[in-house]
Amino acid sequence: MDLVDQALPYVRAISPYQPGKPIAELARETGIPEAHIVKLASNENPLGMSPKARSAMLAATADLERYPDGSGFTLKAVLAERYGIAQERIALGNGSNELFELVARVFLAPGRSAVFSRHAFAVYPLATLAAGGTCIEVPAKDYGHDLDAMAAAIAPDTRVVFVANPNNPTGTFLPRAELHAFLTKLPTDVLVVLDEAYNEYLPPELRGETVAWLEEFPNLLITRTLSKIYGLAGLRVGYGLGSAVVVDLLNRMRQPFNVNSLALAAAVGALDDHAFVAESYAMNRSGLEQLVAGLKHFGLGHIPSYANFVTFKVGDAAAVNQKLLQQGVIVRPIASYGMPEWLRVTVGSEPENARFLAALDKAL
Amino acid sequence: MDLVDQALPYVRAISPYQPGKPIAELARETGIPEAHIVKLASNENPLGMSPKARSAMLAATADLERYPDGSGFTLKAVLAERYGIAQERIALGNGSNELFELVARVFLAPGRSAVFSRHAFAVYPLATLAAGGTCIEVPAKDYGHDLDAMAAAIAPDTRVVFVANPNNPTGTFLPRAELHAFLTKLPTDVLVVLDEAYNEYLPPELRGETVAWLEEFPNLLITRTLSKIYGLAGLRVGYGLGSAVVVDLLNRMRQPFNVNSLALAAAVGALDDHAFVAESYAMNRSGLEQLVAGLKHFGLGHIPSYANFVTFKVGDAAAVNQKLLQQGVIVRPIASYGMPEWLRVTVGSEPENARFLAALDKAL
Repeated sequence: MDLVDQALPYVRAISPYQPGKPIAELARETGIPEAHIVKLASNENPLGMSPKARSAMLAATADLERYPDGSGFTLKAVLAERYGIAQERIALGNGSNELFELVARVFLAPGRSAVFSRHAFAVYPLATLAAGGTCIEVPAKDYGHDLDAMAAAIAPDTRVVFVANPNNPTGTFLPRAELHAFLTKLPTDVLVVLDEAYNEYLPPELRGETVAWLEEFPNLLITRTLSKIYGLAGLRVGYGLGSAVVVDLLNRMRQPFNVNSLALAAAVGALDDHAFVAESYAMNRSGLEQLVAGLKHFGLGHIPSYANFVTFKVGDAAAVNQKLLQQGVIVRPIASYGMPEWLRVTVGSEPENARFLAALDKAL
Repeated sequence: MDLVDQALPYVRAISPYQPGKPIAELARETGIPEAHIVKLASNENPLGMSPKARSAMLAATADLERYPDGSGFTLKAVLAERYGIAQERIALGNGSNELFELVARVFLAPGRSAVFSRHAFAVYPLATLAAGGTCIEVPAKDYGHDLDAMAAAIAPDTRVVFVANPNNPTGTFLPRAELHAFLTKLPTDVLVVLDEAYNEYLPPELRGETVAWLEEFPNLLITRTLSKIYGLAGLRVGYGLGSAVVVDLLNRMRQPFNVNSLALAAAVGALDDHAFVAESYAMNRSGLEQLVAGLKHFGLGHIPSYANFVTFKVGDAAAVNQKLLQQGVIVRPIASYGMPEWLRVTVGSEPENARFLAALDKAL
């Protein structure tokens, strides 16, 4: 036997996640100077990092030779206060991505399945496959989750359901009432992961606090991230809110020092930076209008978005993407999401959006 | 069925890793001001972080709203140059701890076992159990690895062997020739993880470059960390060097952005900081002598150490540890390593070591 043949059979079947092309990589490939490249590919915050997060981070650089606080005491205290829940109901992750993996490693294995929607976040199938689980992908409805079909798809061996709201990469939204009805319908021994990475981009009237549902549904795990509106993607930190027993299981599975010291410190500053969040929200609303107006002007269809990106239809998306890259504009092709005719563009600053629209005009 | 009963049975059996007590935690518990507390519990560098690493890190704080470079291009280029191996033979981890987990998740599962020594690093059994694997713990020889017994312990279902050199928490060392002979004896379809977290603390004449063995043993994965002599424990970054096929499997299993942007940047600076490494090495040698002289003065036995800590025998270690904590000195009890009569103390600065010895004198 060869060593590689000894790897678990499902590992070799995993196709790694394809991230947005880094600016430095495009610069190396094309010779375009980094400063001339516009990256609207990874739903990052065009305003940068929360200034309060930056201050908190810089204040924490004094003792990086020390291991992080593996319990995340201070950050959990802030989150517990914010949401009015006990610290033992909060799990911290190296990005919310890690929380999806921990869920899969705790509840999935060969012979167990996870349910999620077609065109939903790529890490759900990746995490499921990496645990040896089976993927039950439910056809989408208008590019969003079809909750009735998802409830009906739950099999006897289903242990986890992933729901993204708003969804990435399509930007669709599930109203609070529909989601609540869905939760009511599910077996109580199936964990529902409600991925709210883009929650803070929702208009206030839609943003209703799902955390209040945790008492009603002990099988609910809500995940959020500091990578999006708070602008900390490079630092890696996200959190999950759920029942104490589920959080305890995730904590058993995680690395002792999964979240680094600067991410812990920056998150505390970021969560307190209401002015930055408000400014980011406002910039996103006007940027969304700018992009949608431009796409309509070009006669391109798009999916109404509730997040910080817009997914639009161009036909030969691979060709259009190449022409955008040649002009130093990076967006995200989503063929791997079963949408080969579509591209996803992140809402940038006003000049970045204008630069993208001008490049798209040329590319079409 | 209850949700918790649906967790994989081996998950509930995991006892989480017990880290060294953080300074802030002892301060909260005792009221001793943080500045008066000496922590010698986690084998951290008393000189702090490499200054070149700090500069490189601070230069990278400009765009933390961006996701990290998931490929770790620049850091891998530096490591490839340093060790003269191809980039596809380098895996990066959120600390080398993550690499042990990735190995376990790729090669271990229920019905598969891992071999390691008694009194070796606690993460080997944790990673094995978290993957559902079986632990084969081999009795130690003079508190170090008994390589002959380990080779003999390999079962038909063994897929991974973990070897720590120097070993933590005992500080023992395996000479190069013995280790090479061991590798020669093993089945080629069993992965050998050679954990060299403390490699840089070895005297130059013992430090022989095991990386040269990678050509001879495609089943060898060497792991190293930036958490120890380079002083970056709070940032979380380690690396593994192995065959391209093994590294490819680890990359399929890892998160797309497992290492944060500042860790990637700091590691590049740290690896270039030869003066800092030399100074840290020298301080460790003299600190080791200081600690050993003190322990001998008190008539306490210790295990000769090749790393940046000393493990010594005090009898009722729990009681002595409590008396040290009351004086604001944190060391590591290692009862969970099967050594309830011993304590492990990290080599600190000269005044820290003196403070520890004075507190120990009182405690005894």
